[in-house]
Amino acid sequence: MSRLFMFEKPLGMRDTLPELYEKMHHVRSRMEETIKRWGYQFIETPTLEYYETVGAASAIDDQQLFKLLDKDGHTLVLRPEMTTPIARVAAAKLLNEDLSLRLAYSANVFRAQQREGGRPAEFEQIGVECLNDETISSDGEVISLLISSLKKAGLEHFQISVGHILFAQELFQQILGTDERADLLRKFLYEKNYVGYRQHVNSLSLSSIDKQRLLQFLELRGGEEVIGMALDLIENGQGKQAIVQLKELWDVINDYGLGNQVKFDFTLVSHMSYYSGILFEVFAGNVGFPIGNGGRYNLIEKFGKNASATGFAIRLDRLLEALGEDMSTNPTHCIFFSQERRKEAIELAKKLHDQEIRAVLQDINGVKNLDAYTIHFAETHLLIGKAGKEPADG
Amino acid sequence: MSRLFMFEKPLGMRDTLPELYEKMHHVRSRMEETIKRWGYQFIETPTLEYYETVGAASAIDDQQLFKLLDKDGHTLVLRPEMTTPIARVAAAKLLNEDLSLRLAYSANVFRAQQREGGRPAEFEQIGVECLNDETISSDGEVISLLISSLKKAGLEHFQISVGHILFAQELFQQILGTDERADLLRKFLYEKNYVGYRQHVNSLSLSSIDKQRLLQFLELRGGEEVIGMALDLIENGQGKQAIVQLKELWDVINDYGLGNQVKFDFTLVSHMSYYSGILFEVFAGNVGFPIGNGGRYNLIEKFGKNASATGFAIRLDRLLEALGEDMSTNPTHCIFFSQERRKEAIELAKKLHDQEIRAVLQDINGVKNLDAYTIHFAETHLLIGKAGKEPADG
Repeated sequence: MSRLFMFEKPLGMRDTLPELYEKMHHVRSRMEETIKRWGYQFIETPTLEYYETVGAASAIDDQQLFKLLDKDGHTLVLRPEMTTPIARVAAAKLLNEDLSLRLAYSANVFRAQQREGGRPAEFEQIGVECLNDETISSDGEVISLLISSLKKAGLEHFQISVGHILFAQELFQQILGTDERADLLRKFLYEKNYVGYRQHVNSLSLSSIDKQRLLQFLELRGGEEVIGMALDLIENGQGKQAIVQLKELWDVINDYGLGNQVKFDFTLVSHMSYYSGILFEVFAGNVGFPIGNGGRYNLIEKFGKNASATGFAIRLDRLLEALGEDMSTNPTHCIFFSQERRKEAIELAKKLHDQEIRAVLQDINGVKNLDAYTIHFAETHLLIGKAGKEPADG
Repeated sequence: MSRLFMFEKPLGMRDTLPELYEKMHHVRSRMEETIKRWGYQFIETPTLEYYETVGAASAIDDQQLFKLLDKDGHTLVLRPEMTTPIARVAAAKLLNEDLSLRLAYSANVFRAQQREGGRPAEFEQIGVECLNDETISSDGEVISLLISSLKKAGLEHFQISVGHILFAQELFQQILGTDERADLLRKFLYEKNYVGYRQHVNSLSLSSIDKQRLLQFLELRGGEEVIGMALDLIENGQGKQAIVQLKELWDVINDYGLGNQVKFDFTLVSHMSYYSGILFEVFAGNVGFPIGNGGRYNLIEKFGKNASATGFAIRLDRLLEALGEDMSTNPTHCIFFSQERRKEAIELAKKLHDQEIRAVLQDINGVKNLDAYTIHFAETHLLIGKAGKEPADG
């Protein structure tokens, strides 16, 4: 190979070196443990799916998909998210119309990057989907599980912003009439560009009352008091239904004792076209993007089954960023041995391993620079020469 | 999407449903635990690599590679194995010429299938690489770790067949002279077609002594006694060196107390071109293919560093096949609740979770068929209506 390419990786692709790997493994294990206890079953789906099946049903931009052709000329994609593959598996194999279904995953997903800019093109998501249960209890369970698993993973400072896709939809429909006009406003919300939103509203030819409603809508972010404010803006239809559902959700999450972590944000919108009800985003520490998100969606119907679902997905890389640097690594011992005392060294290693201490065995003949090892390992043991004549343990 | 494609997956791609997932997770965790205690550090590399870097250096057939083009026209591959990516990372970032380096991975790898035939195109490998240590102790450590981690995973009946790439190479060189003639014989060995091998040897124009040596070579499979038989066939050069190394390896593995699991097989060859010394395959139960393999190799030099290495890789799907069906699944409870008693139900769930019992919470309003739940879950708890008036737990 050319020297130019020798150590290169494709755009956005990363190696996970030992220290970070250990942290990821630890955090993933703690989340998985909680998710399993709550009765969610983990599954795995293939890295490659048909474009026609999963790629097209997914809400991810087409240009973010990694595509390739199979030998028959069908287009394959590297899965860009897990909700759509899980909808496929559930519809094909796991859904029983008489039962709710709780599934979970931890899996790498792929989003092609168009230019160098530090964004990963492959990252891990940990998530759950609760299918075939339309109750608000189910939405509340998913959010409460999200909070509980993040706490279990060691995250202290975070907040779930909860909204409802139908509230803005109803409000914009009542005032603006057309989807085109509503989409313009939604774009400002999606970008969290509230200045742009206000300017745009003021530029519209609307009654001052309607302008006022659209501007007051921006204030619908906060605690339980927001519910009453929302009722002042919409008194009927789907918007009212959204408020009632959010109030019930609030009660459910408080029964879990987790209300502290939750705020309302009625301005929350999503570029994922399949959301149909309650939706949420997770913010933590100083991380500039949501570390996770979720909500209720209609996607399973694309796979021929009639079942609503709700779920969350956490980005493990961003969760680790939020957790920061405060995790210690596991110290490792090194046992040097010469041939005469190999068996003794192996027995010492076994003793340490049984005490859950990490220890490597190192034939002294393979050692070029003993000092380098002494610096590298937490403790060293020398079993060299005839027994009883070794130097003291270092 | 068309109904035809709705549930389809690309050739050789599989879903891992909950029961199998749990088994995989259990087995992987037990192996990982052992590997970590022995001081190996896990890393992760990207799913996609440059063809020019990892694809071309890998020993996997070009037609088995999944290829795609990035936006700049470079060819990318889905990693077909992990040894080459690890060589890249080690050479680029982790190797210190003064230290041996112990790395490990559990990762999915990809091999394109040409036709439907039950072979997976994506499967998980768990493996280790011990780099920059040329001692036979290092080969013995890797094989002993392989045995110990398989035992920890619950595997009882298995055998490691150990050979040396240089023995057959020397023997064939001495008798046949050219690589072309040697490769013909090696192909029979690779296919384990010993009848074909014998017929081919008998068809060659060689002295009867040389024919006899080539036929006796086939007998070099068994316990320690094989060492003496091998010395009768080759008395010098690299072949002799191979025998001396295998004898020392035997002593090392016996110092670990693991000699029972090991047999010699001097006829072992590999299609992996990078092997350079001791190599081995793992056979278990009734599985028709090796469940794993490994050996000493020169690959890191392709990435510009001078370091020998030895390692193993286990195929998790085949290991699970060898372990069979004898693993039990985790029973899950179901707690039904109505709104009045939601908080009580949440407290019961928390109590069960704290006892490491899996339990789902189910709003009774989301239940279409109570009997279906009663059949599905190991135990059910009913918290319906006003407290103190509930039916007995089911």
